[in-house]
Amino acid sequence: MKLEELFTGEFVYMDGGLGTMLQSRGVDLGKVPEVLNITAPEVIKSIHKEYIDAGSDMICTCSFGVNKYKIEGCGYSVKELIEAAVRNAREAVEGTYTKVALDIGPTGRLMEPNGDLTFDEVYDMFKEQIIAGRDADLIMIETMSDLYEIRAALLAAKENSDLPVICSMTFEDNLRTFTGTCIPSMALTLEGLGADAIGMNCSMGPKEFKPLIEELSKWTTLPIIAKANAGLPDPATGEYLVGPDEFAASAAALIPLGVKFIGGCCGTTPAHIKAIRKVFKKKRYQKNEPVIPTAVCTPEQVVIIDEPRVIGERINPTGKKKLKAAISEGNLEYVLDLAINEVNEGAEILDVNAGVPGVDEKKVIVNIVKTLQGTVTAPLQIDSNNPEVLEAALRAYCGKAIVNSANGEKGSMKAVLPIVKKYGACVIGLTMDEEGIPETVEKRIEIARKIVKSATALGIRKEDIIIDCLTLTVSAEQENAQNTLEAIRMVKNMGLKTVLGVSNISFGLPQRPVINQNFLQMALTCGLDLAIINPGAPGMMQAIEVYKLIMNIDKGAKNFIDKYKDAPDLTAVAAPTKSAVGTVAAPDVKKDL
Amino acid sequence: MKLEELFTGEFVYMDGGLGTMLQSRGVDLGKVPEVLNITAPEVIKSIHKEYIDAGSDMICTCSFGVNKYKIEGCGYSVKELIEAAVRNAREAVEGTYTKVALDIGPTGRLMEPNGDLTFDEVYDMFKEQIIAGRDADLIMIETMSDLYEIRAALLAAKENSDLPVICSMTFEDNLRTFTGTCIPSMALTLEGLGADAIGMNCSMGPKEFKPLIEELSKWTTLPIIAKANAGLPDPATGEYLVGPDEFAASAAALIPLGVKFIGGCCGTTPAHIKAIRKVFKKKRYQKNEPVIPTAVCTPEQVVIIDEPRVIGERINPTGKKKLKAAISEGNLEYVLDLAINEVNEGAEILDVNAGVPGVDEKKVIVNIVKTLQGTVTAPLQIDSNNPEVLEAALRAYCGKAIVNSANGEKGSMKAVLPIVKKYGACVIGLTMDEEGIPETVEKRIEIARKIVKSATALGIRKEDIIIDCLTLTVSAEQENAQNTLEAIRMVKNMGLKTVLGVSNISFGLPQRPVINQNFLQMALTCGLDLAIINPGAPGMMQAIEVYKLIMNIDKGAKNFIDKYKDAPDLTAVAAPTKSAVGTVAAPDVKKDL
Ligand SMILES: [Zn+2]
Ligand SMILES: [Zn+2]
Ligand SMILES: [Zn+2]
Repeated sequence: MKLEELFTGEFVYMDGGLGTMLQSRGVDLGKVPEVLNITAPEVIKSIHKEYIDAGSDMICTCSFGVNKYKIEGCGYSVKELIEAAVRNAREAVEGTYTKVALDIGPTGRLMEPNGDLTFDEVYDMFKEQIIAGRDADLIMIETMSDLYEIRAALLAAKENSDLPVICSMTFEDNLRTFTGTCIPSMALTLEGLGADAIGMNCSMGPKEFKPLIEELSKWTTLPIIAKANAGLPDPATGEYLVGPDEFAASAAALIPLGVKFIGGCCGTTPAHIKAIRKVFKKKRYQKNEPVIPTAVCTPEQVVIIDEPRVIGERINPTGKKKLKAAISEGNLEYVLDLAINEVNEGAEILDVNAGVPGVDEKKVIVNIVKTLQGTVTAPLQIDSNNPEVLEAALRAYCGKAIVNSANGEKGSMKAVLPIVKKYGACVIGLTMDEEGIPETVEKRIEIARKIVKSATALGIRKEDIIIDCLTLTVSAEQENAQNTLEAIRMVKNMGLKTVLGVSNISFGLPQRPVINQNFLQMALTCGLDLAIINPGAPGMMQAIEVYKLIMNIDKGAKNFIDKYKDAPDLTAVAAPTKSAVGTVAAPDVKKDL
Repeated sequence: MKLEELFTGEFVYMDGGLGTMLQSRGVDLGKVPEVLNITAPEVIKSIHKEYIDAGSDMICTCSFGVNKYKIEGCGYSVKELIEAAVRNAREAVEGTYTKVALDIGPTGRLMEPNGDLTFDEVYDMFKEQIIAGRDADLIMIETMSDLYEIRAALLAAKENSDLPVICSMTFEDNLRTFTGTCIPSMALTLEGLGADAIGMNCSMGPKEFKPLIEELSKWTTLPIIAKANAGLPDPATGEYLVGPDEFAASAAALIPLGVKFIGGCCGTTPAHIKAIRKVFKKKRYQKNEPVIPTAVCTPEQVVIIDEPRVIGERINPTGKKKLKAAISEGNLEYVLDLAINEVNEGAEILDVNAGVPGVDEKKVIVNIVKTLQGTVTAPLQIDSNNPEVLEAALRAYCGKAIVNSANGEKGSMKAVLPIVKKYGACVIGLTMDEEGIPETVEKRIEIARKIVKSATALGIRKEDIIIDCLTLTVSAEQENAQNTLEAIRMVKNMGLKTVLGVSNISFGLPQRPVINQNFLQMALTCGLDLAIINPGAPGMMQAIEVYKLIMNIDKGAKNFIDKYKDAPDLTAVAAPTKSAVGTVAAPDVKKDL
């Protein structure tokens, strides 16, 4: 059953705190309070019933900490505890319209790269919980602060259950979670992975939620969850002091921001839920419909493609001996150094290609993705023509990535686009198909249309499709090289984003950096959004910086002046005069990076 | 009376040789054969009559050499000889439809800069002849090899007579005149100055005329004149050997090339004219309607604006101490050196501005134009906002120039456009008017339209209007700087050519060459035709060279590879890394060129 079929009311009234209620009943919570599901089911059910009586449309099972790490040594298995928790809730809701949400909290331990738990371990743990909770009506993943962990939980839910999944993270007042995830990254990532509602719980009161939910409302079209504490705890007593009416009034202020799921967390009681209902029943849900831009992210960083952005091209072993060797030898430090250099030179996104003959590309790309994400906050572009490699990398990647690439071949679209949809990535569509790269602009546009049609049919947003009009080598195909530029112009007019690997243009010619830099500026002027370049190559970053200066993107020339006001003349080596040319012979140096 | 009212037939049959006919009559030609107009008028009239009887629609007066230099000491004045020549022709044509053409030949002496005659002296000489010949039906200027001289004659005719003027030069088999004038330059210049028909005479036979007239037919919409010799003279005897029928057959082969005025020169006789009539009367005149491109020229060199062209900006004293001083002191060598450097660096056209406070701009610009034209074959762009200065420079200039500039102000258009029309120049229209430079693209386009309307109403071809969308300084007007680019795109879509002074964009910012070079490439990509730049500034020529490489203008990358295959790396000084920036402080060097 879909989420909107489970809940047909204007708002979804959730329940409130469970811990406080247990404490108020004088029950010994012990090390694993969820054991009460088996040892004292009536206590649990009575709390559920209080919330049902207060008007909750949805109650969370008492299973927040039931995972194999936390319950170790309690005498019961995850399966036993969760099945008991679901059973108790089911019995409590019997004869009412209230639904049962399988409650899943964090592991309580750190994942790679900060801790020792691997993605697969965490995934398996959540999978166990989800399978055990199969009799619930929906799944609520909550109080998460690590985007990587909630991704594992959400993926486990999507892959092992048909139940709707709603996801809630917990934020600090700097608009980030404890591990640094920002709100747009959470929204892009979780909506991309198919969450049915997203939002936040715990940490602070509904009043303090406002700026956070305001930010969230700009980044999601999903219904928003708000399950705040009863204010901030009293520093002296640790008690939560915001009473039902004040709580309800503050919560109501969140309605214009798109909140649909409303409940309470620590310190809230059935009285709070009752107060909420009283206020909310006079209001209507106000769905958010922001235009969510093309954007990619890591937990910490969002790159919006609303101006030209630089994709570093250097983590690609093609033609690069040293990188090939490093990849073959598993020398990830070398790759990481490359990445750090690219970012320092100006890359905002990093292309990652691990295609070295003889190595397990799938394994290697996953290792590279994990290594980079441990240090570099720039989003990644996963570069492979092997769909299995793409999927493995996307699974390991935390955030919203770019898939490089699908093309107009039926086989490519069929293999790649479903993966893109599943992991909520952006995808590059190459304007080539079974017959290669078309000579005419029109045929390239036709292929772009075909890719857009297939992708959007799968539910991929048009904003998440980025077209690569493909650079031809001007020395070999001079007549058609300019078609790339015209195609970029036309693709832009179709309302799509464009990407281009620039440096292929100059292959086989002298002064490649000069050609690349000028061609980059031509492409930018025709509307290029994403330039796949070596940001350390002479002139490339300046081309982009000047473009932004001229186009009033670098407002007040601030960036340009900051960077160059005290810099030496970048053109100190002037062009040789005609007489100089021809007298000095310099070998065509090939740099292996 | 207009030319087409004088001659209403399909072709205009001219006369043939006069000298040969005189010799065959056993007359002593003497030093100044035109004295015969007074001493033996019956002889002259009888020759005219023979041609009239043979079918000539037009006879040339016997006044080829009547100019004050050639007739010196003959005992008669120019006025007396020409009036007699016209009278004789008039009497000969009495009672027929045949028209009298005042025949004007070259001075026989060299003009500046190769000789000592000044433009004004030559002009005055032709003026005297033209006023004396006022009773003719039209003026035929012929056998000219110096474009500067025929310009003087044509201008003298246009300014001192209302008669139609037809112009004929004499070429060598390298498709140039003795002084180096090429056929397109002749066509652009003479059609621009208002000649009613143009063509060639003397030197060779009608068969040898074919490739020359073929070239001419691509460069003019005017009726073409062909007045060939009776073949090439016999090396032994000096006799012309092509007989009437052969001559007529070869002449007929010129009809598809647009010949309308057909006659003979040295060695031809009434029999040749009769033979021509016989062949031509079965044919129809085939008017040429080539699309004549936007082009500027000197006698020796034509620059077609069918691809981006470079206008050297450096002969402009604004902000340049040394050039100011040179101009004030009349140091033309300094200016010439600048010009030669610009051409060596890649300039194809040179902007010339002589505006220094306290100097006689009119006099100075004329001297500069003359000096440059003595050495440099690149066409010039006359840069002044003083219409008198523009006219003086255009008068002195030999070829087709660019006028920089008119703008959308009524006063500017009224003062400048008639001069442009009179001298057959191209004109730059600045998209500004009484209210300054408009902020919006639309308003700039509106001004461009206004200028086009005014110019074309005066008979200026749309192809000869070049729009300058004006570069704003990005540091001062960042919001609107990009409007220049959009305006270029739109002006191009209107089918007009565009020009831009590029370097103003970077005023007040660091790394000006980097900004200029990138902005130039942006402008080229938006359709810029003429870049006013310092071709010696770093990267500027490369921007243009790469543009031509990418756009398949530099076919086979020939120019690019030739220039750079053995050149040192132009980007050897790489961009400083972030750590380098800020540690090295370089003063903002201002170069005074
Ligand atoms: Zn809480
Ligand atoms: Zn002749
Ligand atoms: Zn003649």
